[in-house]
Amino acid sequence: MVVEKIKAVFIEEPQFDAPVMVEGLPGVGNVGKLAAEHLLDQLEATKFADIYSSYFPPQVVVDDDGVIKLVNNELYYSKADGKHPDLIILVGDYQGLTPEGQYELSDHIMQLCRGWGVKTIYTLGGYGIGKMVEQPRVLGAATSKEVVEAMKAKGVVFSKGEPGSGIVGASGLLLGMSKIYGMDAVCLMGETSGYFVDPKGAEAVLRILADILGVTIDFTDLVSKAEQIDLITSKLKEIEAPVEPKREDLGYIG
Amino acid sequence: MVVEKIKAVFIEEPQFDAPVMVEGLPGVGNVGKLAAEHLLDQLEATKFADIYSSYFPPQVVVDDDGVIKLVNNELYYSKADGKHPDLIILVGDYQGLTPEGQYELSDHIMQLCRGWGVKTIYTLGGYGIGKMVEQPRVLGAATSKEVVEAMKAKGVVFSKGEPGSGIVGASGLLLGMSKIYGMDAVCLMGETSGYFVDPKGAEAVLRILADILGVTIDFTDLVSKAEQIDLITSKLKEIEAPVEPKREDLGYIG
Amino acid sequence: MVVEKIKAVFIEEPQFDAPVMVEGLPGVGNVGKLAAEHLLDQLEATKFADIYSSYFPPQVVVDDDGVIKLVNNELYYSKADGKHPDLIILVGDYQGLTPEGQYELSDHIMQLCRGWGVKTIYTLGGYGIGKMVEQPRVLGAATSKEVVEAMKAKGVVFSKGEPGSGIVGASGLLLGMSKIYGMDAVCLMGETSGYFVDPKGAEAVLRILADILGVTIDFTDLVSKAEQIDLITSKLKEIEAPVEPKREDLGYIG
Amino acid sequence: MVVEKIKAVFIEEPQFDAPVMVEGLPGVGNVGKLAAEHLLDQLEATKFADIYSSYFPPQVVVDDDGVIKLVNNELYYSKADGKHPDLIILVGDYQGLTPEGQYELSDHIMQLCRGWGVKTIYTLGGYGIGKMVEQPRVLGAATSKEVVEAMKAKGVVFSKGEPGSGIVGASGLLLGMSKIYGMDAVCLMGETSGYFVDPKGAEAVLRILADILGVTIDFTDLVSKAEQIDLITSKLKEIEAPVEPKREDLGYIG
Repeated sequence: MVVEKIKAVFIEEPQFDAPVMVEGLPGVGNVGKLAAEHLLDQLEATKFADIYSSYFPPQVVVDDDGVIKLVNNELYYSKADGKHPDLIILVGDYQGLTPEGQYELSDHIMQLCRGWGVKTIYTLGGYGIGKMVEQPRVLGAATSKEVVEAMKAKGVVFSKGEPGSGIVGASGLLLGMSKIYGMDAVCLMGETSGYFVDPKGAEAVLRILADILGVTIDFTDLVSKAEQIDLITSKLKEIEAPVEPKREDLGYIG
Repeated sequence: MVVEKIKAVFIEEPQFDAPVMVEGLPGVGNVGKLAAEHLLDQLEATKFADIYSSYFPPQVVVDDDGVIKLVNNELYYSKADGKHPDLIILVGDYQGLTPEGQYELSDHIMQLCRGWGVKTIYTLGGYGIGKMVEQPRVLGAATSKEVVEAMKAKGVVFSKGEPGSGIVGASGLLLGMSKIYGMDAVCLMGETSGYFVDPKGAEAVLRILADILGVTIDFTDLVSKAEQIDLITSKLKEIEAPVEPKREDLGYIG
Repeated sequence: MVVEKIKAVFIEEPQFDAPVMVEGLPGVGNVGKLAAEHLLDQLEATKFADIYSSYFPPQVVVDDDGVIKLVNNELYYSKADGKHPDLIILVGDYQGLTPEGQYELSDHIMQLCRGWGVKTIYTLGGYGIGKMVEQPRVLGAATSKEVVEAMKAKGVVFSKGEPGSGIVGASGLLLGMSKIYGMDAVCLMGETSGYFVDPKGAEAVLRILADILGVTIDFTDLVSKAEQIDLITSKLKEIEAPVEPKREDLGYIG
Repeated sequence: MVVEKIKAVFIEEPQFDAPVMVEGLPGVGNVGKLAAEHLLDQLEATKFADIYSSYFPPQVVVDDDGVIKLVNNELYYSKADGKHPDLIILVGDYQGLTPEGQYELSDHIMQLCRGWGVKTIYTLGGYGIGKMVEQPRVLGAATSKEVVEAMKAKGVVFSKGEPGSGIVGASGLLLGMSKIYGMDAVCLMGETSGYFVDPKGAEAVLRILADILGVTIDFTDLVSKAEQIDLITSKLKEIEAPVEPKREDLGYIG
């Protein structure tokens, strides 16, 4: 069964009406993962598929009861409620370990998206800037000038030369493939130091995405997580002398 | 012949009645390998298959007579004797060199297991804790809460957050795939420093496994090996000042 | 679609009459890339295909408007004008990340070339010599003695033992495969320090190639880029003490 | 054409009568390569096939005339002359870059061998011992006790625990696969420091092999190369203080 390099195991096979896909996998500051997971919690979204792959680490994770799970990516949905459209949310423990694995995993998702009639994809990530940031901006990149303009109207920042090194990983590939497949796609990148898991960056990304999608979000949990991180980092500041961040650690990985 | 990436060469094709599979491949402290090899010695188990793979190192091993053998994994069996069920034991020189190789090798084993009607899989390994341990505990992880409870009754320790980083390698993958294939599986991890080949950890694991399986084991050889290792390490302690173990060296690799 | 490891997407499918292929992908001093890109600018060549591959980095690049593009190689053509023959030019962001990827990408190009009836291939690159060079020579390597003689007559230098370590990457593979496929091919390597993007090396290569192909080139832009680089490097010389180049950094990568 | 991962291009397709295969690819001290190349020079053997592979480096080599060749392995033959049997000799620039590549290349050779009715394979290599050696022994490893005994009678040394780490690469894999395919095979390993290309080790290996095969060899060229190396190394000794060799650099790679 798992002998294919990528295997989607469906718990149910929902029908969608012009759905929107949101991706939030691990990356810089785990901004995308935090945002997507908070979104699916708030929507009380339903898991409908597990994606296993030999491109992920050969590993199981163990829960608090001692019960294991093969590492995977997971697909959730939340049906349209009159305010927001049908939503499909992709989250997971890992991205593919190799470039080839990342291409094949993203292409697998794209083919599922095409089958469901997905029209727009939002990929979420962090944009590492190497220093603490009080009011993180949300930077964007998109598949066409029309989408760029629409995103600017929503407060997304498009800044020449940012991110200079492009967008690496699933957040980039889903964007690049969407363009080839003829779908609209946007990457939303929350500014983050890149040193910590960053709920503040996730909040910034999700505020804009919620507005775009027509979703109402309670940010209490994310804000509280952000305050905990702030507390830890301010204590660290007292203890340690500031260290100059290494430039190469801060590249954007979506 | 060997051009397939994985090739099982059968010496005989035994029939099994609801067999139990035990895996013990190289890993932390070689705990799993030592335990499985001692089990098959004690059972005078019969080798029935060699597994070759281009995922193993491109290497032959040379025996004391100068005769070579391509590196491999090996399958042994011991038929039910009224006390223990039909047993299949997987041992070997190496695990797959790449994540993809590890997935494909484990999936190959799983498909063989399904063909034989295997109901339960025990994977054996070490749990590196970075310091010498007098009375190693045996930690567990399993495919369901029911199996966790059954193992607790046998003295297996399920401790929240241990192993925190999950279970990597064959011991993890066979567990994860068992859950997907609908089989019961348990990983038994003997505590070990992680610095030496550890017969004491192997003994701890095998005492519990022997009780579960209904096998009678003479531990003399393992105990004697453990005493040799103790002797060496106590001499080393006299010579060397204690060194703080690096945390990252101690991750569990099953 | 992109699920194949290499996928050429054609914008149009031009017919060619005994065309000549010119390759200039990233490499030492980006000499080949600069030369090929300047050639296609001067010819106002037409893009007719994008080549995507899972052997490239899993990445999109973002333009100044915030619009993305999956990293790729690109094919341009310029039809015969009475002076030069039908020309096909291969440029791109990256070469394949792995040896296997490099072989498969080059073989893909070779098969396209065969379909188009390509008779001769020119691969362009830099030859790193580890020091600044005022008047870069253009070294060559070719598929036969006849082609070597023809190139000598055009001013290409064939120097015993240079490049000693062979020619690595697309510039080498296209040459090696041409020989097997029965096509003529030449690698033109402009001397370069190997420390900077080097428009001077590119100019030297392109002057010879333009003469061979019968193309008229305005070198103003390349000369001006070279002057900028000269300015930067002479300033660097004032600031920094000279550093002995590491020998291993200077291998030829085509 | 080259799109297969391994492609043998035949110049002619000779018929063989119970041929013997000799392999000498790059490895420790290049002992095996030097021995096999000297053998084919002395036999004035005929090249009959080129083996290309995407498992080799993506590279061409350039000869003194400036003419290139894609890196490859090559097959030569020398027909039986009443003294020696039909001989097939495998030499080359490189071994496969990855474990998987090494397995697939060796399996490709084994399948060719089976087609030709090869009964015995001799793989040649060096055995790195980390110090200069005056009278190199030739160590052996073989597919069966019978072959071990036959080789002992020819002066091959079989020494318990040597080589302790097994035999890695083509020399090992061809041996291991021969055993599975039911052919006899021997690895002959000439002792060598492992620090230099070692014609002395090659001579030792070839003297024994020539005796086994019934081939008359003039060793003048190898002896003269060995004297040059001796000269260089004795000069180096005068200049440099002796350096303790790193143990891990000396593993056997066949």
